[in-house]
Amino acid sequence: MMNDSIATPAELRAEIRAGRWTGPTAGLLPGVQQANFVALPKADAFEFLLFCVRNPKVCPIIHVTEPGDPVVSLESGNADLRSDIAQYRVWKDGELVAEPHDVTEYWEDDLVGFLLGCSHTFEGPLIEGGFPLHVSAESPAPPVYLTNRETVSAGRVSGPLVVSMRSFPADMVDAVAALTARFPTGHGAPVHIGDPAELGIEDLRTPDFGPAPDLYEAEVPMFWACGVTPQLVLPQLRSRTLITHAAGHMFVCDHRVTPAG
Amino acid sequence: MMNDSIATPAELRAEIRAGRWTGPTAGLLPGVQQANFVALPKADAFEFLLFCVRNPKVCPIIHVTEPGDPVVSLESGNADLRSDIAQYRVWKDGELVAEPHDVTEYWEDDLVGFLLGCSHTFEGPLIEGGFPLHVSAESPAPPVYLTNRETVSAGRVSGPLVVSMRSFPADMVDAVAALTARFPTGHGAPVHIGDPAELGIEDLRTPDFGPAPDLYEAEVPMFWACGVTPQLVLPQLRSRTLITHAAGHMFVCDHRVTPAG
Repeated sequence: MMNDSIATPAELRAEIRAGRWTGPTAGLLPGVQQANFVALPKADAFEFLLFCVRNPKVCPIIHVTEPGDPVVSLESGNADLRSDIAQYRVWKDGELVAEPHDVTEYWEDDLVGFLLGCSHTFEGPLIEGGFPLHVSAESPAPPVYLTNRETVSAGRVSGPLVVSMRSFPADMVDAVAALTARFPTGHGAPVHIGDPAELGIEDLRTPDFGPAPDLYEAEVPMFWACGVTPQLVLPQLRSRTLITHAAGHMFVCDHRVTPAG
Repeated sequence: MMNDSIATPAELRAEIRAGRWTGPTAGLLPGVQQANFVALPKADAFEFLLFCVRNPKVCPIIHVTEPGDPVVSLESGNADLRSDIAQYRVWKDGELVAEPHDVTEYWEDDLVGFLLGCSHTFEGPLIEGGFPLHVSAESPAPPVYLTNRETVSAGRVSGPLVVSMRSFPADMVDAVAALTARFPTGHGAPVHIGDPAELGIEDLRTPDFGPAPDLYEAEVPMFWACGVTPQLVLPQLRSRTLITHAAGHMFVCDHRVTPAG
């Protein structure tokens, strides 16, 4: 378990950089913005950036680096995208070649880094708002499903909409939808509420990623766009080098999540 | 003056395409979204798209085309970015070479077209809201000024923040700011209210672009980010081909402007 003395994002990133924290970040430092990470060559970055712009619920943009620059300037100082994420995945020409805890040796002069919002962002506000989340310390991630809907393609970047699911009592659904809509860096409002079959999901008990959920008769499933889509799609570009975070091992920003508007 | 029979954006674009309407679009079809236009080679498009993402008040993105594709699919049918704008400016290697009414002959297979929000977008709602605008049929454009603030650069795309100015009675300032904040495709909330000197503007009577304004002792000047910055900055990239709309000659979308949120 995590050292109780780690109280700030900067301290957590320092632990990660030093190799002392290599586990998932889901559930850590509630209320702090966490981010999905993607890095790919500048030659492919236009298509991916355009994909993000066209699919703001799937890939809400928090930060995009200049080509080759792994340093992100934060309030508390600089973070290094090559070392400050606990685990990465590295593809070469579309083939997964490594899942290291540091990608300094894989970094290249033309890689563009993307930090994209993730749904951990609105879990803190939901809990604070008194909306119960069925999560546990062992399994903090939500179940994730492929759907029969398509994202809006950009050049060669195209693929199915992927969703995460959380269920709530019927009388909370409207309030949960409204609250999450206020967090655009957490995928925003749900993309679907209710019958999973309308998304082409046959059985909620068998997610494509993440843990099988406990199902509650009296609750309504709610679905949010999920940042997994890029990880599924980008290897198909067969970029010389592609780097992402490993599932659940997010980049932890300095700032706390605040609602828009 | 405009033919009174033109009642829809599609009809206006058809008149423009046929060469029968070659004038500015400012003030036409109030309430309809109008857009700034930029087209540049894919090799330069990442930097410019990133500039737009980093400066959403300066360059609010409405649409970005696939490289080489000049067609925009709208509710009423297809529009053609090569012919459906009344006047263009064309640069070759950074030199202005033409200001034609049609750019079909200049279009190339790798040009990416950008449609970006413009401040005409919130003038309709301001007028409807009972906030007086000092505009005339002869001079519908606002005065525009260079400032001492910088936009957030992206690669080689950098330059000063440019602002448009409109003045209002002091008791309306808060309401005008709040109303425009609800229109992100119209540059959103003002970037500055009050003393022009804080933006480095020495004399409101001598704008850098647009007509000299009438000044009213009892009114407060309000400043909004302006989409002129890209036109100032992009020729410096010396792209093989760069195309923009000519000032005041906007792309007219199908949809009416609606507030966000």
